[in-house]
Amino acid sequence: MAAKLEGIFTPTLVPLDDRGRINEPELRRFFSWLIEKGVHGLYPNGSTGEFTRLTAEERRLIARVACEEAKGRVPVLAGAAEANVRETLAACETYFEFGARAVAIVSPFYYRLSSESLYAYFAEIARESPIDVTLYNIPMFATPIEVPIIRRLAEFPRIIGIKDSSGDLAFMMRMIAAVRPSRPDFSFMTGWEAVLAPMLMVGCDGGTNASSNVVPEVTRTIYELTKAGRFDEAMRWQYRILELFDAMLFPFEFPDGFRAAAELRGFRFGRGRQPMTAAQQQDRTALEGVLRCILSDFGLVAPPATGCAPRTGLPAEDKIAQIVFGVMRELEERGVVWPKP
Amino acid sequence: MAAKLEGIFTPTLVPLDDRGRINEPELRRFFSWLIEKGVHGLYPNGSTGEFTRLTAEERRLIARVACEEAKGRVPVLAGAAEANVRETLAACETYFEFGARAVAIVSPFYYRLSSESLYAYFAEIARESPIDVTLYNIPMFATPIEVPIIRRLAEFPRIIGIKDSSGDLAFMMRMIAAVRPSRPDFSFMTGWEAVLAPMLMVGCDGGTNASSNVVPEVTRTIYELTKAGRFDEAMRWQYRILELFDAMLFPFEFPDGFRAAAELRGFRFGRGRQPMTAAQQQDRTALEGVLRCILSDFGLVAPPATGCAPRTGLPAEDKIAQIVFGVMRELEERGVVWPKP
Amino acid sequence: MAAKLEGIFTPTLVPLDDRGRINEPELRRFFSWLIEKGVHGLYPNGSTGEFTRLTAEERRLIARVACEEAKGRVPVLAGAAEANVRETLAACETYFEFGARAVAIVSPFYYRLSSESLYAYFAEIARESPIDVTLYNIPMFATPIEVPIIRRLAEFPRIIGIKDSSGDLAFMMRMIAAVRPSRPDFSFMTGWEAVLAPMLMVGCDGGTNASSNVVPEVTRTIYELTKAGRFDEAMRWQYRILELFDAMLFPFEFPDGFRAAAELRGFRFGRGRQPMTAAQQQDRTALEGVLRCILSDFGLVAPPATGCAPRTGLPAEDKIAQIVFGVMRELEERGVVWPKP
Amino acid sequence: MAAKLEGIFTPTLVPLDDRGRINEPELRRFFSWLIEKGVHGLYPNGSTGEFTRLTAEERRLIARVACEEAKGRVPVLAGAAEANVRETLAACETYFEFGARAVAIVSPFYYRLSSESLYAYFAEIARESPIDVTLYNIPMFATPIEVPIIRRLAEFPRIIGIKDSSGDLAFMMRMIAAVRPSRPDFSFMTGWEAVLAPMLMVGCDGGTNASSNVVPEVTRTIYELTKAGRFDEAMRWQYRILELFDAMLFPFEFPDGFRAAAELRGFRFGRGRQPMTAAQQQDRTALEGVLRCILSDFGLVAPPATGCAPRTGLPAEDKIAQIVFGVMRELEERGVVWPKP
Repeated sequence: MAAKLEGIFTPTLVPLDDRGRINEPELRRFFSWLIEKGVHGLYPNGSTGEFTRLTAEERRLIARVACEEAKGRVPVLAGAAEANVRETLAACETYFEFGARAVAIVSPFYYRLSSESLYAYFAEIARESPIDVTLYNIPMFATPIEVPIIRRLAEFPRIIGIKDSSGDLAFMMRMIAAVRPSRPDFSFMTGWEAVLAPMLMVGCDGGTNASSNVVPEVTRTIYELTKAGRFDEAMRWQYRILELFDAMLFPFEFPDGFRAAAELRGFRFGRGRQPMTAAQQQDRTALEGVLRCILSDFGLVAPPATGCAPRTGLPAEDKIAQIVFGVMRELEERGVVWPKP
Repeated sequence: MAAKLEGIFTPTLVPLDDRGRINEPELRRFFSWLIEKGVHGLYPNGSTGEFTRLTAEERRLIARVACEEAKGRVPVLAGAAEANVRETLAACETYFEFGARAVAIVSPFYYRLSSESLYAYFAEIARESPIDVTLYNIPMFATPIEVPIIRRLAEFPRIIGIKDSSGDLAFMMRMIAAVRPSRPDFSFMTGWEAVLAPMLMVGCDGGTNASSNVVPEVTRTIYELTKAGRFDEAMRWQYRILELFDAMLFPFEFPDGFRAAAELRGFRFGRGRQPMTAAQQQDRTALEGVLRCILSDFGLVAPPATGCAPRTGLPAEDKIAQIVFGVMRELEERGVVWPKP
Repeated sequence: MAAKLEGIFTPTLVPLDDRGRINEPELRRFFSWLIEKGVHGLYPNGSTGEFTRLTAEERRLIARVACEEAKGRVPVLAGAAEANVRETLAACETYFEFGARAVAIVSPFYYRLSSESLYAYFAEIARESPIDVTLYNIPMFATPIEVPIIRRLAEFPRIIGIKDSSGDLAFMMRMIAAVRPSRPDFSFMTGWEAVLAPMLMVGCDGGTNASSNVVPEVTRTIYELTKAGRFDEAMRWQYRILELFDAMLFPFEFPDGFRAAAELRGFRFGRGRQPMTAAQQQDRTALEGVLRCILSDFGLVAPPATGCAPRTGLPAEDKIAQIVFGVMRELEERGVVWPKP
Repeated sequence: MAAKLEGIFTPTLVPLDDRGRINEPELRRFFSWLIEKGVHGLYPNGSTGEFTRLTAEERRLIARVACEEAKGRVPVLAGAAEANVRETLAACETYFEFGARAVAIVSPFYYRLSSESLYAYFAEIARESPIDVTLYNIPMFATPIEVPIIRRLAEFPRIIGIKDSSGDLAFMMRMIAAVRPSRPDFSFMTGWEAVLAPMLMVGCDGGTNASSNVVPEVTRTIYELTKAGRFDEAMRWQYRILELFDAMLFPFEFPDGFRAAAELRGFRFGRGRQPMTAAQQQDRTALEGVLRCILSDFGLVAPPATGCAPRTGLPAEDKIAQIVFGVMRELEERGVVWPKP
């Protein structure tokens, strides 16, 4: 029997080249770096990986590269949702052949389905898939999967876990209470690192966290401290990752803030596939200043040349503060204004 | 300059064969029937056409068939949204070559975008597309497009209209007030036939209505009566189509109720791509009874053998009533019970 | 049998004095003016009347004054919802003694109730009230009342109508289709004047419209033109009142924009009970300029001394435009800048 | 300087007599019992206390009784929101004279206010109140209070804490990160006991939990275990209280499930003020069976005579199971059916 999914799986970002195509060499370099930095698994074709903005062929390419780079080092959980059940099952077969550990199937989106239809959908996949399946619940983007349906679906041995991105701790506890007694091997992963440590404390098995693209060292630390029962230390890191997460999540279109931050770690992600106006590009530059400051506090990148303003943890306010701070420092250097004595 | 989009465009359903593939002969027969019954245009690859459950190749096939069948008879508005701007523009070029009149681009979904990003997205398409573009606003499934953004986008000559499926009359009036003065050629189409006649009364140019797959005669009648200023007559038909629309929309997963009703007009649509449980299949059979009754009141199909129960217009209650009614009639025929004297 | 409720009932604003108390003389003058300007009824203690910001004693005072001023001229529909059924029934009795035509009972708010509980609540009031009752559905603030429940409640002779502020035309049509066949005396009133004319076109009996505090002449005109079948003329007024409604509704806290506009008609409403920051007070002053421009186009007030900027109908943009316009005109007058030749 | 608010404050239920009036003797007996069972404070006139269904006089009576019973034993936090700022300040003065430790002011409801208006509202109260104030954020019922506004309001020394009933752990962490550095005395209380232990783990100071009306021993145990760093033990209790909370919260109208459970502890709460249909009363009886089973597992009440069915933690399913179980046991006793061997 295969090992239970545990630990931090990175829902991997996708580097693009100048012509907007997948930058495969950079993708390989990035995957390899993540594994070296200690993530427990790769999770290509998730929401962070912008699977809806890729073609079916591109999704296959990314899953294949993930399996090749991970081989023998970490397991791969590959997002396999396609346009319909038949196409999804075809992807399941392909990823099985690539050597993925399991696939993740997001709840149907665009149309909102009834619970009964959700059950019918996942049940058909569970019956036919040659590879283990994890459910993927992300109520802000796709049809929510309720606990009674999860309980019924956990009767399929092929379904081995759920990734939940609701960030709702009570929901996680309800799932665990409903499923774990009969399925101790069932894996519960949280996609909401804002509350990663508390989720692990209530019994969650790990996380699939976008932030692990940027600070894989930190998400691993939180995982290990919590598993070791060192909750107070874990919570100190948790507050720090919350600030970073909020700064990456709120001011940009998702996942562009995560792309901007991961670039500061030394990778070229290129322009995203969602166009930006000139105003948005300026805004992104401004926010990079804040991200650089946060990451430099972690000791992972150098601070901006102009230094860092004090922060509040409120992304909009911190962005303004950092812009003003940078401008003032430049004016001081040019002798236009003088620093406070 | 090309003619303004006006009238009823059918967001066409997709017939499938026994193996779940597109049934091209039936698709051609259906498109041709719609045109003969008087629809003003075909609109393949909309939400009713389950574009998200098709592969990119299937969407192309359907658009091509629509253009071939429509040729010289009615214009085609083809849904062209693909995974990203580049893929979408490729579809625009293809549909342009097929001879489509224009494309419809749904607002990005799954991720919810800011207004600024919506603008950037549609602006890039407007700049590059070789074919006229209509915006497609469907807030229940995709990122809502607000009036100020529509107003800015209407500055692109390539953008020639909007299809709005919100059903919100005030929103429609706000769009018309904001755009029509500077763009009298801009077309406003409603996708919510529950209020088709009122929408036309406030100045809307037409509709893209799922019900026109089922009763193309009726949607055309409402359009013509309203355009002729015969509002009272139009409203009587409007109340009747509301009952039909609700019966098709609410009890099933969309668009399965429309598929079930269109089958009663003599087409084979096959099983949909969203799996159903046994309970759902029974429920669908029960609802077909109500749909048959409503359509027989229009004089378009024969009533059920067991006759029709009185209806209230409330879908859930009417379904139960019709089931009970059918059972009672059968028991009467078998002499088990006697009819009320 | 009492007459069916029809026409435009004003959900009356409440003038306050310098100490924040109800300004009774101004309240009487205002009520009398509304009746003279042609409203068909008074509707005190509605949402526009800020019933939740009044004490129980103040609500009684306002209802009494409405009945006294209306006496022999127009009917009064008095908002009678209190903290619980017993208190509500006590208000019903009091308003019955005051001579009100009927009471309006808003759906319970704060807690969101199930449909079954809504039924139990209104049924108990319907059984005990000495005065006719109208339901009040306002889903943006209170528990929504669904059509099947309205249908069941319409079996109580004491319940004679519904005021609906959803603005949803299909919902209005569904209510009418479900209730009117068995209750032709049941009155359907819309609280959403953004779509007043279309609502009347589909069969609605009238409106309870906050805008009738400001332009009672216009809401009456729309009502009469529509009832006379002069839909095209009605729609022209409808587009104009939509602009006014949006300008009063969106930029301020409700109902402060309506208070600001009603003041331009010659009444002192005083500072509202919801405190404002200094920034909000400045903003209110800026918006009064736009309101004055819109009302001067109706010929009901004088335009601002500095004249009016062109408008788009988009409240936020029009406010900025009017501020800039006013400043430029002042600078021109002072000779600082010159007008465009 | 007064002590920081800490520990479990009970948002007290209100017992009614046969005529629907407040049952003052039972209220006193109940308050006294809660204090004896170890709650750290009383919180009358919260949502659990149905403050919106009481008259202003009744709210004063309850606050007075709470202060009298608590005197010298535990602090009282009294809900003081009234119809407007002036009435609210009058209640603040009264409760100050009663000897309350602080008041809780719920965010304005019915109308949804802008953040700027929320600030203006609470700022005016903070400036004028003679008694310490806690904010009360309950986004499911009232206007949400966002973190930047909380941060600005925390500059008023009079505002000493916030009760948050969102159940959102990340939101709690964001508040703590934004306010605690400058206001270490500011108290953060959670109103969502579904996640009480995790909330305490991330730094929350206590809870105002409806469940403490029913199992004050258990909420205290969770508080003390967590404060002592015995997280694993706390989490075991946490899972048990989650089951109880869900069983009380979801199947009934709030707070009737809590009233039903508290009755099992030996108090007469009487019929609530929200009417019930006959079907609802039957349902309540059925659910009492489940509540009795859960509470008997805690060792706090005797199990039902017919015994307890196995439970899943899913309230709807457990209710059905318990009904079936009870019926089967009765049939067995009557010899109609035989137990499984």
